[in-house]
Parts: sequence; C-alpha cells; structure tokens
Amino acid sequence: MSKKLLLTIVSLAIAVAAFAQGPRNPQNDPMPAGFYPAETNVFCCQYPAVNPVTKEAIFRIKADGAREVSIGICGKRYNFTKDAEGYWTVKTDPLIVGFHYYMINIDGTPCFDPGSEAFFGSNSEQSGIEIPEGPEGDYYRFDKNVPHGKIARCVYWSDINGMERVANVYTPAEYDKNPTKSYPVLYLLHGWGEDEQGWVIQGRTLNIMDNLIAAGKAVPMIIVIDSGDIKTNSYVREAQEGKTVSDIYVNDLMPYINDNFRTLKDRDHTAMAGLSRGGSQTFNTVFANLDKFSWVGGFSGGPRIADEAAAKALYNGAFTDAPKYNSQMHLLFMSTGSEENRGTKVGCDVLTKMGIRNVVFMESPGTAHEWLTWRRSLRDFAQLIFK
Amino acid sequence: MSKKLLLTIVSLAIAVAAFAQGPRNPQNDPMPAGFYPAETNVFCCQYPAVNPVTKEAIFRIKADGAREVSIGICGKRYNFTKDAEGYWTVKTDPLIVGFHYYMINIDGTPCFDPGSEAFFGSNSEQSGIEIPEGPEGDYYRFDKNVPHGKIARCVYWSDINGMERVANVYTPAEYDKNPTKSYPVLYLLHGWGEDEQGWVIQGRTLNIMDNLIAAGKAVPMIIVIDSGDIKTNSYVREAQEGKTVSDIYVNDLMPYINDNFRTLKDRDHTAMAGLSRGGSQTFNTVFANLDKFSWVGGFSGGPRIADEAAAKALYNGAFTDAPKYNSQMHLLFMSTGSEENRGTKVGCDVLTKMGIRNVVFMESPGTAHEWLTWRRSLRDFAQLIFK
Repeated sequence: MSKKLLLTIVSLAIAVAAFAQGPRNPQNDPMPAGFYPAETNVFCCQYPAVNPVTKEAIFRIKADGAREVSIGICGKRYNFTKDAEGYWTVKTDPLIVGFHYYMINIDGTPCFDPGSEAFFGSNSEQSGIEIPEGPEGDYYRFDKNVPHGKIARCVYWSDINGMERVANVYTPAEYDKNPTKSYPVLYLLHGWGEDEQGWVIQGRTLNIMDNLIAAGKAVPMIIVIDSGDIKTNSYVREAQEGKTVSDIYVNDLMPYINDNFRTLKDRDHTAMAGLSRGGSQTFNTVFANLDKFSWVGGFSGGPRIADEAAAKALYNGAFTDAPKYNSQMHLLFMSTGSEENRGTKVGCDVLTKMGIRNVVFMESPGTAHEWLTWRRSLRDFAQLIFK
Repeated sequence: MSKKLLLTIVSLAIAVAAFAQGPRNPQNDPMPAGFYPAETNVFCCQYPAVNPVTKEAIFRIKADGAREVSIGICGKRYNFTKDAEGYWTVKTDPLIVGFHYYMINIDGTPCFDPGSEAFFGSNSEQSGIEIPEGPEGDYYRFDKNVPHGKIARCVYWSDINGMERVANVYTPAEYDKNPTKSYPVLYLLHGWGEDEQGWVIQGRTLNIMDNLIAAGKAVPMIIVIDSGDIKTNSYVREAQEGKTVSDIYVNDLMPYINDNFRTLKDRDHTAMAGLSRGGSQTFNTVFANLDKFSWVGGFSGGPRIADEAAAKALYNGAFTDAPKYNSQMHLLFMSTGSEENRGTKVGCDVLTKMGIRNVVFMESPGTAHEWLTWRRSLRDFAQLIFK
C-alpha cells in the first residue's frame, strides 16, 4: 500500500464527511500541517494524530466532566488542556518509532481512547499508536505486489487446560498451491499480558513473513501463534497440578498442529521463539524437550547469563557439555533493544566462549522493551532458521 | 467445553491468585452466591459477573476520582455506588440472554470497562457482556467432540479502495482433507459500525457452522466475512466516484476469494446475507448482480416492504415478474427479533402473495436488534442454502 495515498484518501474522506455533517466536531478539526491520523486509529478517526517527519503525536479526547487528563507514553507524562467544548488535547515530544501501548488517564482512571483500535496487553485491552518509520519499516508493511499468506484462527481442545484455546496459524502464500508439500514450523510466543493477537496485529507477522519469503530471504514456513499463558493460569495450575504452559504446547498444541497442518514434524524442522516472558517460556520449553526442537530464540527474553557458572546452572546443565549441545542445536538467538539493559550480549558472549556454537546476538537500535524490537527480531530470526 | 468446569476452574484460579497476592483487591472479592465471571471478560477478571439463573449482572470499576458512574444496557440505565476504596458497583435487573455491547459512563464520558474484552461496534471498541442461555444456546458453543473448521484472516488488495482490506474466511473441517473438492460460498456482512471480527467473535460463526455441519444440518461451505463498509468510506467514495461497497465485493473481494480458495463459482453456489445495515447492502449487491447470486438473506435488515407497490419499486422491478424471479432465485430469507418492530413479516407476506416463491420469514423470540437474533438467523439460514 502507498501510505501517502492512503493518508490522502483518509484526509479527503474526513474533510468531506466533516462538511456533510454540518456542525463543527472538534474531533474532526483540520489538523496542524504535517499531522495525519495514526494508522492504529479506528478508520476515519482523526485523533490521535502523528507527524511522520517530527514523530510528534497529538492526542484528543472528549471528557466534559473531567478535571485532569494526562497520558504517559515513551517514558514521559503529558498533561492535556481543555477547550470550551470539553475536548482535551495534548501534543507530545517526538516519540520513538514503532508501536506503543497507552491509556489516557482521566481523573486518576486509566481510560481507553475511543479513537484507537484495541490491542491486548498488560492483561487488558489497551489503546495503541504506531509512530511511522521511514522506508526502513517497509519489511513489516503490506506490499500488494508480493504473494500473501493467511493467518488461520484455530480453536482447539486442551485436555490440560480443560477448555478450548485459540492458536493463530500463519501459512505462506504457496501453502494452498502445494497440497502435498509439508513445511517446517516456528512456534512464536507473545509477552506478559498479551494474547494470540499480539504477533498478528502489533507484530505484523503476515507482512514480515510474506515480504521475507517473496524476497527469498526466509524459507516458507508455518508459524503458530498460540494464546500462550494468558488463558492458561499457568502459575495457578502449576501449583495445583504440576503442569506448566510448556505441557500445553507439547501435549495439546503440537499434536493439534501436526494433525491439522502439513508439517515437517522432526526436531530439525521445529523452532520456538518468544518475546519477553514468552522468551523465558520458550527456553524452558525447548530445553525440556530437546527431542522436539533444535532452533531457539529469545526476543528481549530468555535466560540472563552473567558468567559461566550461571550458564552451567541452566536447563539441567544443557550448556555444560558443548560438543553434545552443538550436535543437537542449530541456533540460539537472543535479541534486545538498545534502550533496554538486559545483559543479553554478555550472555551470548559467555556461551560462545564456552564453545557453544551458532549463538547469534542481535540489538535493535534506538528501541526499548517494545514491539519494534520484536518485529526486527522476527525479521532476523526468521532468516536464520530451517537452513 | 463444559462451561461449569470452566467456571469452576476460573473461580478456583482467582481464589488462589487473590490469596497469593496478599492485600485485598475488591476487583477479586468473592462474588455473591450464584454469580460467575462473564465469558466475555478478560480471562481471570472477576467482573462483570453474571448469574446464569436469574440473568442479573454486576458491573464494577475502579474510578477513585469519579463523581457519577452509570451504565445503560438492555434499554435501561443503572447508577453505580462507590465504596471506600474507590470501586463503583451496580447490580442490574435480569438482562436479555445473548451478547450486549456496553460502555460505562464516568462523569459524562463513555468509558471502556477494563474487565471486558473489546468488541468492535458503533465505529469504536466497545465493552461487551454475554448473558448465558441454557442448553438452547449449545448450537453456538464450542463442542470438543465435533470436527472444527478454521477462520483465515486474509489481507487482500482493493483497487477500488486504493488500499488493502481484511476478509475472514471460514473453511469447514473437511476442507483441508479434500484438496480437490470445491465448496459453495456464503458472503456474510456485518452491521453498521462493526467490522470483520463481528461475525467471528460476537456471531460465533465457527461454532455455529462446525455444529451444523457435524450434525448434517448444513452443507459444508466457505463463509467470507469481509471488513465491509467500515474501512471503505462507502458514502464518501460513492459521492466522489460513483463506487459503492457492492463494487468492492464484486470486483475486488470475489475474485480474490475465487483465486485463493476452492470455490464453486456459479450463482447456484453463491449466497449473500447480512445483518442490519449489512442486510440492505446484501440486497443491493445481490439484485444488482443476479448473475452472481441466487440465495439472499437479510437479518434485521434489508428492504422494508409495506405493500405490493413498494415491492414493485424495489431493485429495478425485480419483483414485478414473479415467474422470471422464481426461475432465478432459490431463497429470500428475512428475519427479525420479536422485540424489534421492522415490519419484516408483512414484507415477506406481501412478496409471497405476489407469487414470489421460497420466501422464508424467521422471528427470534425475546430478542431485539442484537447478536442473539443474528446467531439464530445464521443458524436457520445456513440450513436452507445450497440444497
């Protein structure tokens, strides 16, 4: 899609709609020059608005009865000011590019912004805003000229959970054209408080994979994006029955996927990666099931390894015998945003020094613990696996 | 799924979680006897709570700084009362079973309830609550003992819209097992202010179709649930370029579906139905494209026909020549909730009296302009088509 064309259409549409509606609606006021509706907005909602050059954002909400309205975003808090018609508005400083969750605080209550679509994070529906990158973000944008895969919403029964669960499953564009071909599988986990929509919506998995595969940079693969721990009560159930979310993945999810998709089932063709808390769950799952996985990724998540002793204490001593480890695992990938301080590079260096091969460290420049770090991580990780 | 088992698990989980957390969180207080978390809640959120026997609901929200909190639901407004810790609570009268959108009004501002998942309606993200039906609602519940289809999120390019759009496509359980078989297609439209998630989440299309097909009551079919007019600006574009959402369906969506799914492409195997405003769009699309469709459904939507003269004025005189009409169309289905007053039955009777055959009227008892009316409509309509 041409973003510029879209923005022109939307602006025109809103101008016409505003004209047709008659009385002034401050939500639809002409915006300051250079500002456009954020692409994360409900379609045709003018605010929040972003300036793609300066990266500033303007938030606006109608809250007649409110006494104090503020927003915290990218580590800073901003106070809104109210106009005569009960609209509160604020312009931010330049924000970090990529996707940010936010809520608008009205008299002490965090409120959802009606101009935003909903994004599930922090165990609740959050507002979100995309601050546009330049052409360097094209890898996660829809390109009408490449073949497109699909993401299937699958509902499957989990015996361990005692209820149905949702898995979103990406299949590449060629999948339906090759009814006898089987594909490798990446299990891709979300972070704390997110759900099966995270990698689909915030993460842009479809666009990233369609673009990589079309360019010949990644192998066509199936990607499984499960509900994860959000609908699991893993901690509670762990306490009660000794079951973790890993057991759900291995005992309920993987058999469902293998029964319902054309998968290459061996460990050489099975990978798992996850972000933040999903990174820890990934390493826990993979190293407890080395018969099933041989590629592992932690995006702003996974083990923190300060030194050799710490490494050796992990995962039942998996790193104590480097030759044995190297004969089993094809890739250990760990990434971090440059604005996080996770000691990820230190951990990768320790492992490499211990003789662990195929350790790849990746740093996302200028980003913190956020979705742009993880889009970049998926982009890089996906190019390394199943090769 | 056993709903009772789920509720027990959730209650236990919350009890344990509350115990583990330490200080009292009124959001997690034990609920009055007979109340359970609504199934539309964010997983593990205690409120809103429903009593499946009395059909009463309890809403609770933390809003320390608020002076007045209320909720409008099922045609009535209720005022919350505040406790010492800033939690506002209200218990409603018995509510109509099925799904209801709602927002909580805090000092004049409609606010999203953080205990609820998000449901797109009225052109914005809304809170929603499911008031449970008894076993008569089993047709839209997940049954672990029947084979399950999938709903694929497809992103396709629309030349008319000048941007990409989303279509959710249901394929029946057997679709992937029969790689050479082609299927009839139902295009299913949402209502005003809703989007492509409406029929997936609020409408329970997957469960309804899986259950009907497993019982042999409906033919295995593909169902296409498009973004519809929400990301179209149909009015604006109509004014600018003479294009309607119907043009998008026929020129951009249908070719995409026929290229990417194994469809039976002839008019005998193509149906369209829609709810509310989507019902009107359905009739406009079908009668302008009789070479493409032969089954049509309007759920609480479609033409209002007071008498024969009104009928004859519709759709370029499609109803003026009954024998010609009857040679083309297999079904004209119109439904309404008993608590709506749409004159739907009158319209169906007028058409039948004019010699129009295969007119089917359906009334949903005890429901208004709401999703339970439309789940029942889909259940009945799906059993009549492609036979």
